[in-house]
Amino acid sequence: MKTLKGFREFYPDPVPSKDAWSFGMRNWIFQSWKATARKYGFLEYDGPPLEPLDLYTRKSGDEIVGQLYNFVDKGDREVALRPEMTPTFARMVSQASTQYKKPMKWFSIPQLFRYERNQRGRLREHFQLNADIVGESSLAADAELIAFLIDVLRDLGLSHNEFRVKLSSRSAWIQFYQKHHGQPDKQYQFFQAVDKMDRLPEDIVTQQFEDVGIPLHLVKEFISSAQPVGDLIEVVNHLSHRGLSDYIQIDYQIIRGLAYYTGIVFEAFDCAGKFRAIAGGGRYDKLIHLLSDSKVDLPALGFGMGDVVLTELLIELQKAPNLEIQADVFFAIEDESFRPQSLAHIQWFRDKGHSVHFPLTPTKPDKQFKLASELNARCLVYIDPLNPHDLTFKILTTRQKLTGPRELISTLL
Amino acid sequence: MKTLKGFREFYPDPVPSKDAWSFGMRNWIFQSWKATARKYGFLEYDGPPLEPLDLYTRKSGDEIVGQLYNFVDKGDREVALRPEMTPTFARMVSQASTQYKKPMKWFSIPQLFRYERNQRGRLREHFQLNADIVGESSLAADAELIAFLIDVLRDLGLSHNEFRVKLSSRSAWIQFYQKHHGQPDKQYQFFQAVDKMDRLPEDIVTQQFEDVGIPLHLVKEFISSAQPVGDLIEVVNHLSHRGLSDYIQIDYQIIRGLAYYTGIVFEAFDCAGKFRAIAGGGRYDKLIHLLSDSKVDLPALGFGMGDVVLTELLIELQKAPNLEIQADVFFAIEDESFRPQSLAHIQWFRDKGHSVHFPLTPTKPDKQFKLASELNARCLVYIDPLNPHDLTFKILTTRQKLTGPRELISTLL
Repeated sequence: MKTLKGFREFYPDPVPSKDAWSFGMRNWIFQSWKATARKYGFLEYDGPPLEPLDLYTRKSGDEIVGQLYNFVDKGDREVALRPEMTPTFARMVSQASTQYKKPMKWFSIPQLFRYERNQRGRLREHFQLNADIVGESSLAADAELIAFLIDVLRDLGLSHNEFRVKLSSRSAWIQFYQKHHGQPDKQYQFFQAVDKMDRLPEDIVTQQFEDVGIPLHLVKEFISSAQPVGDLIEVVNHLSHRGLSDYIQIDYQIIRGLAYYTGIVFEAFDCAGKFRAIAGGGRYDKLIHLLSDSKVDLPALGFGMGDVVLTELLIELQKAPNLEIQADVFFAIEDESFRPQSLAHIQWFRDKGHSVHFPLTPTKPDKQFKLASELNARCLVYIDPLNPHDLTFKILTTRQKLTGPRELISTLL
Repeated sequence: MKTLKGFREFYPDPVPSKDAWSFGMRNWIFQSWKATARKYGFLEYDGPPLEPLDLYTRKSGDEIVGQLYNFVDKGDREVALRPEMTPTFARMVSQASTQYKKPMKWFSIPQLFRYERNQRGRLREHFQLNADIVGESSLAADAELIAFLIDVLRDLGLSHNEFRVKLSSRSAWIQFYQKHHGQPDKQYQFFQAVDKMDRLPEDIVTQQFEDVGIPLHLVKEFISSAQPVGDLIEVVNHLSHRGLSDYIQIDYQIIRGLAYYTGIVFEAFDCAGKFRAIAGGGRYDKLIHLLSDSKVDLPALGFGMGDVVLTELLIELQKAPNLEIQADVFFAIEDESFRPQSLAHIQWFRDKGHSVHFPLTPTKPDKQFKLASELNARCLVYIDPLNPHDLTFKILTTRQKLTGPRELISTLL
């Protein structure tokens, strides 16, 4: 009995083996994401993990089907496990946009699924922080979103020595393309050539740029300039007012593969360059219009950050917190005749919000003491038969002891 | 563009329409579940939402396939969206049980999927709190699990006037069956007849009990006794020591449909009897052995509580909390020349952990004030041009005002 290839189990900490995924680590990341989202006023939403297939083919064309978990359900519907959140988000926005203040700032942490063939070690599911701003065309929204991305990573303990957000701009590339008289109908082909240029052999790359009518050396020159132009100037200034200059750099190599981006685009990377992109996104002003059957037309921008690369990076950089689970109280029962009374106390402490362990069955005192420390209990509480109307409280590390009513002990926990 | 039938979208609060599902409500329930789990020392885990089909057919036989979202993936594997968590849980336990202290107390909040035909208004996905205890055969574990179930519902604001846990026992039924000379090979058929007896016409029910050799009137007599016998006596005593007697009642009508229960079984219901069961579970001492290919043999018990009936009940009983989302600060920008300086302050307040809204673009002062109150900000903060080195702080409800350094204002938030 095994999981499907590329799917994960998350174990309670400490995890049973070195390569097992930790629920505590996942929870720590999600909590950090949520806390930063709250600071920026992003509201959380969720949608179905299973959707009609055409929600995805409509946006990305039929070629995406090869990477989907899609099937025909028992009611003869073509369905797919969600490979990304944006189409679901666009549908929710188009249905409810009149009910929310603009700009809408929303986030979600969906689990996403891709059937990727022939790639060793690549997972088939991951969790992804999705954050989007809808209804604001000003570049202040781009800056706000990028600042949020930076603070998401800062909140996880990463500094500008460890990650950088690389900024680029589709508008800057369009300007470049027009200035050098690129063929208008081949603009997206040109973007794709830029996107793949460092992954393909030089001769193929040269050929691809010749096909669209732009010499490779001009492209390389523009990329190596690395100076903000046009809309990037404003975004860079805005981020510098926030004191976030150290976290960004201009990198025109970033262009994002998908067709629908219209303005600023960006990706976050580890400075050491050991990992794939940590996050990526940009402005997609026409997508909601397209996905809402032209009923709603709102400018929008967003990014996604997966949990797999991020977790690997945090572990590599030793940013993961201590995931030991602590209990407040181990309630010991030495003398079984006090079990009924002990149960009443245990219930009382739990009602007060404290986490309480106790031996479910008669257990020798020394074994209980050992168990208490194995369960990471901060203190031992028990009824001393010589003074059964009070409780005795003992701090496990210091062995300091105190006897008194439970109300007093509760204040010490 | 719509979701698939039976699948939900969860919207930020306030939700756009009366019948929309609220993310805030879902989050409130999940947080309550997690807080109560912590008090009882349950550890959280998760597994894949997509699993090999035979993980489910092995336990429940092929008839379950009719209710599954199952398909053949692109690698020719028979797979299914998880309809329940227990098989995944049993696999994880059988792989890792040697690494954890017994009894193991684990919980999870998976989203589960069932393709149910011809049932109006029934959802095809729900979230379910799953809590299990493994490695303890004593009835103290049954009492601990039932106490946890009671406290999960109490923590959500429900009292013993609003819900009750109905306790029953497979062992008591086995004793009854043997005492009245039921045919040994028809015991499970007998259990199923008890499970369905109040949903079928009297003549069919009479026939079903005749088939297994037990007259209906004896069954009815046993049910109407409603007195704890055998293992139930100990569990009832144990819960009464904890002060939880008011939350339980004996109800032998409860027997649970599934084959694998071996001891105490229980279900939670609303007292008004308006809803389906809120939760259900019991002891299943042989299941881990079966699902682990006989490699691990550990007694176990658990329950599941779905979010759909629970949410409906909490709304009906008006237990849902105020789900309004508050922001700490609306940082107003009256004079655009102070925008760069304001952005630095906004970053500073967010770094301190405060949630901050601000106008992304130039906005008239009265509109900003209106926006601040629409966004539920507790206070307004801004740079007064007459005193630009300090910040002015204004409580939105009382309009009390104060001017001072940001460090001071931060302490007031």
